[in-house]
This record gives sequence, C-alpha cells and structure tokens, in this order.
Amino acid sequence: MKIGILGTGIVGRTIGSKLVTLGHEVNLGSRTSDNEQGRAWAEQTGARAAHGTFADSAAFGQLLFNCTPGHASLAVLAAAGRENLRHKPLIDVANPLDFSKGMPPTLFVGNDDSLGEQIQRAYPELKVVKTLNTVNCEVMVDPNRVAAGDHTMFLCGNDSGAKASVRELLLGGFGWRDVIDLGDISNARATEALLPIWVRLYGALKTADFNVKVVR
Amino acid sequence: MKIGILGTGIVGRTIGSKLVTLGHEVNLGSRTSDNEQGRAWAEQTGARAAHGTFADSAAFGQLLFNCTPGHASLAVLAAAGRENLRHKPLIDVANPLDFSKGMPPTLFVGNDDSLGEQIQRAYPELKVVKTLNTVNCEVMVDPNRVAAGDHTMFLCGNDSGAKASVRELLLGGFGWRDVIDLGDISNARATEALLPIWVRLYGALKTADFNVKVVR
Repeated sequence: MKIGILGTGIVGRTIGSKLVTLGHEVNLGSRTSDNEQGRAWAEQTGARAAHGTFADSAAFGQLLFNCTPGHASLAVLAAAGRENLRHKPLIDVANPLDFSKGMPPTLFVGNDDSLGEQIQRAYPELKVVKTLNTVNCEVMVDPNRVAAGDHTMFLCGNDSGAKASVRELLLGGFGWRDVIDLGDISNARATEALLPIWVRLYGALKTADFNVKVVR
Repeated sequence: MKIGILGTGIVGRTIGSKLVTLGHEVNLGSRTSDNEQGRAWAEQTGARAAHGTFADSAAFGQLLFNCTPGHASLAVLAAAGRENLRHKPLIDVANPLDFSKGMPPTLFVGNDDSLGEQIQRAYPELKVVKTLNTVNCEVMVDPNRVAAGDHTMFLCGNDSGAKASVRELLLGGFGWRDVIDLGDISNARATEALLPIWVRLYGALKTADFNVKVVR
C-alpha cells in the first residue's frame, strides 16, 4: 500500500521504516522538499522510501499517518491540502502536549475536547483513527519489546471500515495482541488523557519501554 | 488503629468493612448523626464499627479516608472541621467527576490542577495521599478479584511518612502487589486523568472488575 507519513521526526521515521519492512511504499512529508531528515531516511531505507512536502506525502498516500507534534498538527494538515486528504484514513498518533508551562507537560485541550476531534472537525471527510499515541514510537511498531507484547493498545474513530483496516495493521503488521476499540473519535479525550501518567511513569521507571495492560 | 471514613456511600462502606476485618476501629461519617446508611452499616459490621457526623468521624480517626463524591469533598472537609484534620494522613480516593454535561462524565479540574491538590492547598497541615481512585471500590480492597492481583496501583503525596504507612496498608492489608509512588501530590493530576479511560472501559468491558497493569 502507498502510505504518506506527515512528520520526519523520530516517530515518523520509526513508523516509516517499519512500514517499508512490511512491504509498503512510504513517503515521509515535511515542510520543505529538501528536509535533511527526510532525505537521509529515504536514502538509508531503500527503494520503497521517499520524501517530499506535506502535500507530496498526503497526495501519495492511500493511508496517512499524523506524526507531527500536536501543536503543529492542524497547520501541517492545512499545508498538506484539503484535496489531498479527502476520504482517506488518517492514523493520528499525535498528542496535544503543552510544554510552555514547564515539565511535565500539560495538555492544550480541555477535558471536553481532544486533538483527534479537532482534526476530525477541521476535516470532516478525513477518516481519523486515533491510536498508538499512548506509547513510545519504538513500542508502537514493536510491542514485543515490552513484556513479550502482553499489553494493550486503544483505538477510536468514527469510520468502522477505517478502524478495521487500522486494527489489521496493528495486529497483523505491528504485532499488537490486545486492541480495544473505544468507539467514536470523541474517545480520543480518554487516550490523550493517558499522557499525564505516561510522562510521569517515564520519569519514575527511567525507560520508555513500558505500557499498560488492561487486565480483566 | 482508629480510622475515620468520610462518606457512607458504597465506597466508604466497602473500605470500612475491609478495615474492620483487618482489626481496625472505624467510624463512618456523614452529614447527620442519624444517617440511615451509616447506622445500618455499623449495626451489621459489629463492635468495631460506628458512625457519626463528619466531625465525629474526623475527630475519631488517626487516619482518614475521603470517600465522598469529588464535587462535595471540600464542603465535607469544612464540615469535618479543620481542628479534627490537622496533621493527620488522609487517603483521598475521590475523583473530580462532573456529570452535569451528561455521560461519560468530564473532570471539573483542568489539566493543571487536581482534586488532591485542591484538598492539600485548602488544608496544608493534612497529609494527603492520593490513591485507590483509579479502580472500583470492590477492587480497591480486594485486588485479587481481578487477574489474581497482577495489576498496578499508584500513589502520590507530599509526606513520605504518610505515604509509607499507606503503602503498607495497600500491600499488607488490602493485598496489592504493585504500588508505584509517582511523587508529590501534584501527580494526582495524572491519576485523576485516568478516569476518562476508566469510564469508557467500564462501558466497553461491561464490568467494573478491571484495572491497568504497568508492564515494563
């Protein structure tokens, strides 16, 4: 499948590399077509890896990933271009982290909103699926690195077809074993609200190789 | 030990009964000294169980529990009386749930505050320890009812002595096996922020017998 990843940071590059190993073609998008991280990644990753602008990446992908910092995500989608986003599934792994008040970060959305919903409202034709935002990017694409994969991923979104495709990628592609569908995109409020505990556990455990398992 | 529990609802009664079985003396407090739930609980629970007003309960206890609805907690502590609270450890199991906008509830605190901090600020001499608020009351006092107790409880607070006592009660008394100390009371922001996912998992799993395990 052709996949566009918005963001050339560590999250975008890690997911992009995994998708290439799974046989997909990936275009990593950034603000400019000569982004150094995008160019280096594409060179290192091989024939199925390319880079371009946000608009190039969005136009290329049949499936899109939002791997940009939460505070930049809406501006990035605007740069990607509404016509390049229309009717496509977008996996939103970003978090509305606000570092402006110091550490640990707070969230720039209140309890009655989420970044996932903001993106869905701004682009009603986009099929936003919120997932993977609750773990470090290394764990996103390789859940087995923590406790042999015995832990939980959440997803939510309004489009059941898009959610089914994303679930298949998580289970069959990335190796997740327990994926809980929370319902529509408004449930992104709950998974984004896991970031406050994530950043504190990161401090307490001194590693990003952790996750939660929903035991029942 | 003499323990005062503020609140005669299901949470207060469940914790109270467990503490009595552990050999403690418990006074369950409510707004009036003739509260029907308090009276019935005390009669059923035996010689070490009593009930009274919030002030009676707080004066009685060497250790206190806040088992009131979050929106009522500060008013309850005012009714309990500052002189009855001074220098005592208070285990705050309440959550700042706001049901006024419908279901699922939101939180009435923002990302940069918590009910635990509000209580600590209002009563600086109280030794507030936030814990147990992330699970159903049946699980609070009997973690073994879920996955043989293989899951995680968090605690936080400013007083290390109070936290050590509470940890001992959780491990030795209630049967918890994995208790993570997140640091000072400001970390209550993170554990109270687990309520949005808790209420959604309660809906998805159709049971309150669940919790999260931090796997690492």
